[in-house]
Amino acid sequence: MTVATSSSSRTYAILGTGALGGFYGAQLQHAGLEVHFLVHRDYEHVCQHGLVVDSPEGNIVLPTVRAYSTVEAMPPCDVVIVALKTTQNHLLPHLLPPLLTEESVVLVLQNGLGIEEQVAAIVGAHRVMGGLCFICSNKVGPGHIRHLDYKAIAIGDYAPDYRPCGITNRMQAIAHDFERSGIPIECSPDLLLARWQKLVWNIPFNGLSVVFRASTQEIMANPAARTLAQEIIDEVVEGATACDRPISDEFVQKMIVHTDRMKPYRTSMRVDYDEQRPLEIETIIGHPLRVAQQAGATLPRIGMLYHQLQFLDMQNRTMGRVTSDCT
Amino acid sequence: MTVATSSSSRTYAILGTGALGGFYGAQLQHAGLEVHFLVHRDYEHVCQHGLVVDSPEGNIVLPTVRAYSTVEAMPPCDVVIVALKTTQNHLLPHLLPPLLTEESVVLVLQNGLGIEEQVAAIVGAHRVMGGLCFICSNKVGPGHIRHLDYKAIAIGDYAPDYRPCGITNRMQAIAHDFERSGIPIECSPDLLLARWQKLVWNIPFNGLSVVFRASTQEIMANPAARTLAQEIIDEVVEGATACDRPISDEFVQKMIVHTDRMKPYRTSMRVDYDEQRPLEIETIIGHPLRVAQQAGATLPRIGMLYHQLQFLDMQNRTMGRVTSDCT
Repeated sequence: MTVATSSSSRTYAILGTGALGGFYGAQLQHAGLEVHFLVHRDYEHVCQHGLVVDSPEGNIVLPTVRAYSTVEAMPPCDVVIVALKTTQNHLLPHLLPPLLTEESVVLVLQNGLGIEEQVAAIVGAHRVMGGLCFICSNKVGPGHIRHLDYKAIAIGDYAPDYRPCGITNRMQAIAHDFERSGIPIECSPDLLLARWQKLVWNIPFNGLSVVFRASTQEIMANPAARTLAQEIIDEVVEGATACDRPISDEFVQKMIVHTDRMKPYRTSMRVDYDEQRPLEIETIIGHPLRVAQQAGATLPRIGMLYHQLQFLDMQNRTMGRVTSDCT
Repeated sequence: MTVATSSSSRTYAILGTGALGGFYGAQLQHAGLEVHFLVHRDYEHVCQHGLVVDSPEGNIVLPTVRAYSTVEAMPPCDVVIVALKTTQNHLLPHLLPPLLTEESVVLVLQNGLGIEEQVAAIVGAHRVMGGLCFICSNKVGPGHIRHLDYKAIAIGDYAPDYRPCGITNRMQAIAHDFERSGIPIECSPDLLLARWQKLVWNIPFNGLSVVFRASTQEIMANPAARTLAQEIIDEVVEGATACDRPISDEFVQKMIVHTDRMKPYRTSMRVDYDEQRPLEIETIIGHPLRVAQQAGATLPRIGMLYHQLQFLDMQNRTMGRVTSDCT
């Protein structure tokens, strides 16, 4: 599998022009790359007004972008970036095939575990690459993204059973395009390790931010919540270890120091909760939990968090915000 | 230790004339017993208007009650009923001594573990009796209690280290007074077993009702929440067993069937949370957890619930209701 090495010739499709896809797609186009955006709700607006990204590092205004309301209208692209919420991944069997050339790579920029297997079943494992975004951004209006902080991506190539792929040429080629756009890229030789490392943060902080309706800062500032976050992190590390991806104490400590220093931050799962959207519970918590349990780990706190989030997600979407109208 | 066996001669002091103490004290007085009420916020109102209990079983109006704003003004009584929230138990060293005769019994009508030891340290173990109330009632206004459902009490005599005391004469004498008042009494030969049995319900349903802001019915109706409640119950049983108080599957199943059949019910901890009062976390969850851990049990889900409630309690009282003002 090769990707053209002249950066100008690589074309990008962005599936999901929201806080994530809108941000990275705009950056790529701003750097001169050809980018095709699949736009759902904001299609008319984006056709007329393009995309705007507000960022402390400088705003980007793109008055014209290549916007599409269906994948059938889009050209096949060299790199297809999946930037949907994982709760919409049931759409991928429809969305992906029309966009593929013989050589296309599908780069899945989603959190959690089990995603590459899903995508591989649709497009073939040889096409699949995974990426983990470290970014705070929100969609604040139609075609309007507000970038708050961070933007790096860790990418890793995928092979069946998450066999480590090392640093491949196509990873480096894609990394080059992103870096031209000002996005720091870390090339991970072991995608599964990178995914578990990201889960060290995502499971406790996405999960607790919803259960507690709190920011990361509120969690870190409270001794009981901080202890609980640490206990959940210990279970994530236990799960990773059971999957032959041990995570060092040093990595964990660095992540905690980093979280202490972060600005008060509403996690992506908390934003989804507040917007009464479905939560990415299965990919971020349910699937890692099951994989770790199959590998012999017992993770009672993550299991409890999983059940709690399932309850809160269901209440949140079926009843509006939970209110106290019981007697 | 004896209590006068002629029911007419036994006098009662009620510490805490709220949803619990107001209800039981009014029932005792209504049945002809001499009852002295310590009243805090509603003192003036209760002096002028007495107590009113609305109940589906018939309302009780007591235009005149013996109300006091301080224990120093009260006479010593044969039975001193502690019906405060356990979060106010730090007041007991001041409240209890003035009310005691040589023969007084202190009956602690509070949930959780560790309470009798606290009271024994103040008044001597030989005076202490414990009770567990199965009742749904609320204080709806000054001197005004609304009784919703249930009202039985399980009482048990206390001895150091919760050595089982069997059925004592003084228990039966007090039980007789309550039964005269229409309150079903179960005499427990083993107070610690009775307390752990009550915790089988209180730990999961008080705890989850706050974390989920939900009624017992909403918890039971959701498969994930119901599974979690069952897993927490299993841990309570594990804790009880570690403390040499095994609880039968049959008891647990009966309790679950009972909860399924209950009306939607706001637990006492949920009511406290909604009123932004301190939660009874230590006696209902923290102390049982520590006792069970010291006895060798590891109860990760109860530990997690404990930390979650500590966080929510602190947020609830320091910031008003938790709101989403993080960025």
